[in-house]
Amino acid sequence: MSLLVVGSVAFDGIETPFGKVARTLGGAATYFSVAASYFTHVNLVAVVGKDFTSKDAAIFRGRHIDITGLERAPGKSFFWAGRYSADLNDRVTLATDLNVFADFRPMLPPAYRDSKYVFLANIDPTLQRSVLHQVRGRPKVVALDTMNYWIERTPQELRETLKHTQVLMINDAETRQLAGEHNLLRAAARIFKMGPSTLVIKRGEYGALMVHARSVFSVPGFPLGKVCDPTGAGDSFAGGFMGYLARAGRVNDVTLRRAMVYGSVMGSFACEGFGLDRLRRLNRAAIHQRARHFWRLTQFRI
Amino acid sequence: MSLLVVGSVAFDGIETPFGKVARTLGGAATYFSVAASYFTHVNLVAVVGKDFTSKDAAIFRGRHIDITGLERAPGKSFFWAGRYSADLNDRVTLATDLNVFADFRPMLPPAYRDSKYVFLANIDPTLQRSVLHQVRGRPKVVALDTMNYWIERTPQELRETLKHTQVLMINDAETRQLAGEHNLLRAAARIFKMGPSTLVIKRGEYGALMVHARSVFSVPGFPLGKVCDPTGAGDSFAGGFMGYLARAGRVNDVTLRRAMVYGSVMGSFACEGFGLDRLRRLNRAAIHQRARHFWRLTQFRI
Repeated sequence: MSLLVVGSVAFDGIETPFGKVARTLGGAATYFSVAASYFTHVNLVAVVGKDFTSKDAAIFRGRHIDITGLERAPGKSFFWAGRYSADLNDRVTLATDLNVFADFRPMLPPAYRDSKYVFLANIDPTLQRSVLHQVRGRPKVVALDTMNYWIERTPQELRETLKHTQVLMINDAETRQLAGEHNLLRAAARIFKMGPSTLVIKRGEYGALMVHARSVFSVPGFPLGKVCDPTGAGDSFAGGFMGYLARAGRVNDVTLRRAMVYGSVMGSFACEGFGLDRLRRLNRAAIHQRARHFWRLTQFRI
Repeated sequence: MSLLVVGSVAFDGIETPFGKVARTLGGAATYFSVAASYFTHVNLVAVVGKDFTSKDAAIFRGRHIDITGLERAPGKSFFWAGRYSADLNDRVTLATDLNVFADFRPMLPPAYRDSKYVFLANIDPTLQRSVLHQVRGRPKVVALDTMNYWIERTPQELRETLKHTQVLMINDAETRQLAGEHNLLRAAARIFKMGPSTLVIKRGEYGALMVHARSVFSVPGFPLGKVCDPTGAGDSFAGGFMGYLARAGRVNDVTLRRAMVYGSVMGSFACEGFGLDRLRRLNRAAIHQRARHFWRLTQFRI
């Protein structure tokens, strides 16, 4: 079923212990849509500047990604630069130039308005809500990412948007901050009172934890022989998760667990190359092979 | 089959956000043997001082724990005190009074010398090796714990002891330090060249990872509604792991995975009470119930 993503398409400058790129295509919506496109059709809403060329747009071509909703605005595209620590667990932001993204007012093309699966990447919660107002009927799943900036600066707007969200997908620090509670299970209980019925906690190299009313599910980080660049891993996770769910067309504990695994699969691939290098060169066979690898990594009999 | 543990029996002073105890029984060999005794018979080798009373020894009575090897020496028992951070992920050591432990020379009672499963808790690697010299024949599994102190101060002695070790059970920081390699899979490959054929990496709230030649297995930390005191969780993990293996009497990928789960079960229980409070009040039904809970926490179909 149709999957809508609203978020950033950006250029990134990335420094890791394994290399440096001054400017490569990135942004949450880019990672998300490339990852999700291996599973389902994706409708993309974002804004880029005049520096975004046809060559840049090639990332979306030949995939199931509709970019009718990719607005071209006068000015430059969002630019982010960061440097990772030696162990890749920390990063410092070197630049955040919002550029055209500062005035982003997401507008859904008419064909997008029937989307049944919606992912609201990490942007202003007021904009996230404006997207939901443009969707006709009631989506099957609205998933949302956010960050400390919105939790601290626009708590009321975020709370309002969370009322219309089924799946909240954030990291453990954000979970604790939003709930005002260190213990993750008790934090989840508080968050369920805000609207979401499912909480997906991303924990980087340690994997991800999903909590909903009837079950808790944990999937480990994939032990990679080499982690090249973690940029976009969380958004690729979200893409695999929502892409799989939209493809399955059913939301229950079985499909949610599989979505967690396919999310982890896509997040692990994202780390194996700089920027989108590995993610863009996948195929379904490689994805299923890694999902089976996750199965061997976690299964036991008692 | 008989399981031998050599390590510390100590008194601990513990401060966590949930309470404070000035002096409670602890020590690696204590946690290990109590945890392991739910699975198999345990032979304990340790030293205590004159301050260790019959009341303290009650922890071992009525369990399958033989304390013929618990030496009583003139002086005071090993005392450790620590304070945990608000999130329980860090702790500062407030006191380490080795006392009688400073002159500990482990001696195996004759009845212990046929032990087929051996756990060498975190002590001087030279003493660990002296224990192996006292074991008759070739044990089926020698497992070893160590720490940064020995990795830095006695690297050659540790390397020599590792040659006779099948299972190395350490945390991720120790893994990286010992191997001189940040990536855990590559660190494991280096450690296999030192002797061990199985590496168990303890990751606290994030669970544990096992690497051996044919397989990688990950088990998550158990999501507890309340973590009271993490003291002894790693040693309880080791006790569940080795206790299960000794009970199974077979070492293969299936039993090693189960051992990881039962280790995690015992580690999670250890965190639920102060000191040994929760661990000492378990029964097999509770243990198996939690193992099934781990199963539900991790299983999926693809």
